[in-house]
Amino acid sequence: MDSTFVVGIDVGGQTSKLGVVDARGTVLAQTVIRTDTYNEIEPYIAELAEAVRKIIKEAGVEGNVRGIGVGAPNANYYDGTIENAVNLSWGGAKSIPFAKLLSEAVDGLPVSLTNDANAAAVGEMTYGAARGMKNFIMITLGTGVGSGIVINGDVVYGHDGFAGELGHVTAVRNNGRSCNCGKTGCLEAYASAIGMAKTAREWLELSDEPSLLRSLDNITSKDVYEAAKDGDKLALKVFDFTGKMLGRSFADFIAFSAPEAIVLFGGLARAKEFLLGPIEEAMNANLLPLWRNKVKIVFSQLKESDAAILGASALAWEL
Amino acid sequence: MDSTFVVGIDVGGQTSKLGVVDARGTVLAQTVIRTDTYNEIEPYIAELAEAVRKIIKEAGVEGNVRGIGVGAPNANYYDGTIENAVNLSWGGAKSIPFAKLLSEAVDGLPVSLTNDANAAAVGEMTYGAARGMKNFIMITLGTGVGSGIVINGDVVYGHDGFAGELGHVTAVRNNGRSCNCGKTGCLEAYASAIGMAKTAREWLELSDEPSLLRSLDNITSKDVYEAAKDGDKLALKVFDFTGKMLGRSFADFIAFSAPEAIVLFGGLARAKEFLLGPIEEAMNANLLPLWRNKVKIVFSQLKESDAAILGASALAWEL
Repeated sequence: MDSTFVVGIDVGGQTSKLGVVDARGTVLAQTVIRTDTYNEIEPYIAELAEAVRKIIKEAGVEGNVRGIGVGAPNANYYDGTIENAVNLSWGGAKSIPFAKLLSEAVDGLPVSLTNDANAAAVGEMTYGAARGMKNFIMITLGTGVGSGIVINGDVVYGHDGFAGELGHVTAVRNNGRSCNCGKTGCLEAYASAIGMAKTAREWLELSDEPSLLRSLDNITSKDVYEAAKDGDKLALKVFDFTGKMLGRSFADFIAFSAPEAIVLFGGLARAKEFLLGPIEEAMNANLLPLWRNKVKIVFSQLKESDAAILGASALAWEL
Repeated sequence: MDSTFVVGIDVGGQTSKLGVVDARGTVLAQTVIRTDTYNEIEPYIAELAEAVRKIIKEAGVEGNVRGIGVGAPNANYYDGTIENAVNLSWGGAKSIPFAKLLSEAVDGLPVSLTNDANAAAVGEMTYGAARGMKNFIMITLGTGVGSGIVINGDVVYGHDGFAGELGHVTAVRNNGRSCNCGKTGCLEAYASAIGMAKTAREWLELSDEPSLLRSLDNITSKDVYEAAKDGDKLALKVFDFTGKMLGRSFADFIAFSAPEAIVLFGGLARAKEFLLGPIEEAMNANLLPLWRNKVKIVFSQLKESDAAILGASALAWEL
């Protein structure tokens, strides 16, 4: 029997999205289950396995599924575990043999696991903006800043399986903001959706500059985006600053692996019109001459609603 | 005929060292020619080829040489060229097809070319402190700061062949020192032998602190080392600072590729007793908890006099 379909699962803190995908990246059937209603892994895996069976049946591809790819926080590709995932209600401090548990629950289908940003990188290489690229860096700009690094066509996992934590390089060396990881000055503390909203709030507090944002409580990155679209100067400056922080760090990333492109993905990446200019300016100003104006900044082309599932599913083609 | 020997050539600004090496890393015959007496590449290549023939004959391995590995500044592994090597008298602004020219001059023996730090990484993996390691970062601390990155057992060359310029990540973001590359605040401007000497000179100028170094003109990193060995407090502080700059940057490198170890090589790396402590302290303070106290700092074990030849020769085994 020809096994030409895969299942992709994106495990998020609130929900888990899953879908059946064909070799062209078409999502044939998909569903969502809650992640955060479980404090133990076993009943969560049971519901997830049930959902997998359901969508395979719905897509009419029983017996033709090659395997399952999973993108999850704190996932280790080498041993298929999720470790210390504090953002998952059942994540806790333990090491959870996620791939093994899920595989057993779906009658032995092979399961491959990696962190969400690595999954996004594989997805982008398989179906998206990085098709044909062998060397690129995926940066996910969401609640946090994640990364997936591809060198010579392979995702970099490193010695321990956890390579690619570029959200936690130091962007501000002295008096930097506190980061969720416990350090200060991390790129994520400035360039994530939460970091950008924080920049806006700080600047509103520190100046009297008029801004559409002054009328809002609990400003989010989306509010800043809407204000920037309306021409709000303070909001535009927040984007300039966020882009500058990204571009500076990108220059250091390029000195490492000399990629063809840096691919941006995630909620904030939708603000291309406000981010691209400042990123490129700061990046090129900090690059060695040999790379100046040569490394592309690319924005993800994956359909937003399918992207997480596609990224995870792409892993399963390698099984 | 069994081809079980290789030739390694280390092209430096002043001299070029070359030797015949066996599979165990024993240098059977070696010699040195001047690099800086030539303003054109052709006569330099002619003398180099002559020297290669001489040492092959001396080692008694004619007909048993598999190939030649060359470590050189600004070398591109992919196309065997040396580009814009301003530190080489015949380097100029052009792109020199070095591998091709040398191969033609030695009766078609295959020639593989890479930059000196990548060659050192391959040498360390083949014969030295990184034997058995699949993921490590080589940092060369000499006149400049170079790097060779190994991921999954392979040197990282990147999209264009120039990956691994970690001496030019930004160590000091604002008001940083000028670097030879034209940027400011590069790691190399602080952590190279020249950078460290500069730190000593600046501190002598800015304070009245007594120091053995005050009696010297044109202070070098070697002077700082000798003073530190004599217990000179200012010299020790210079090492603390240099180690801190390295350790901070190493933390960012680890977030990229999660290596098993960082291997230090070159003149400054001889000062292990003064550098190791400050490097480890700053590195661990800037690492995500998952890597804290887990990544080794290793000092090169290659015999100093042979190291450059061995590093370059190791490349030729892959031919």
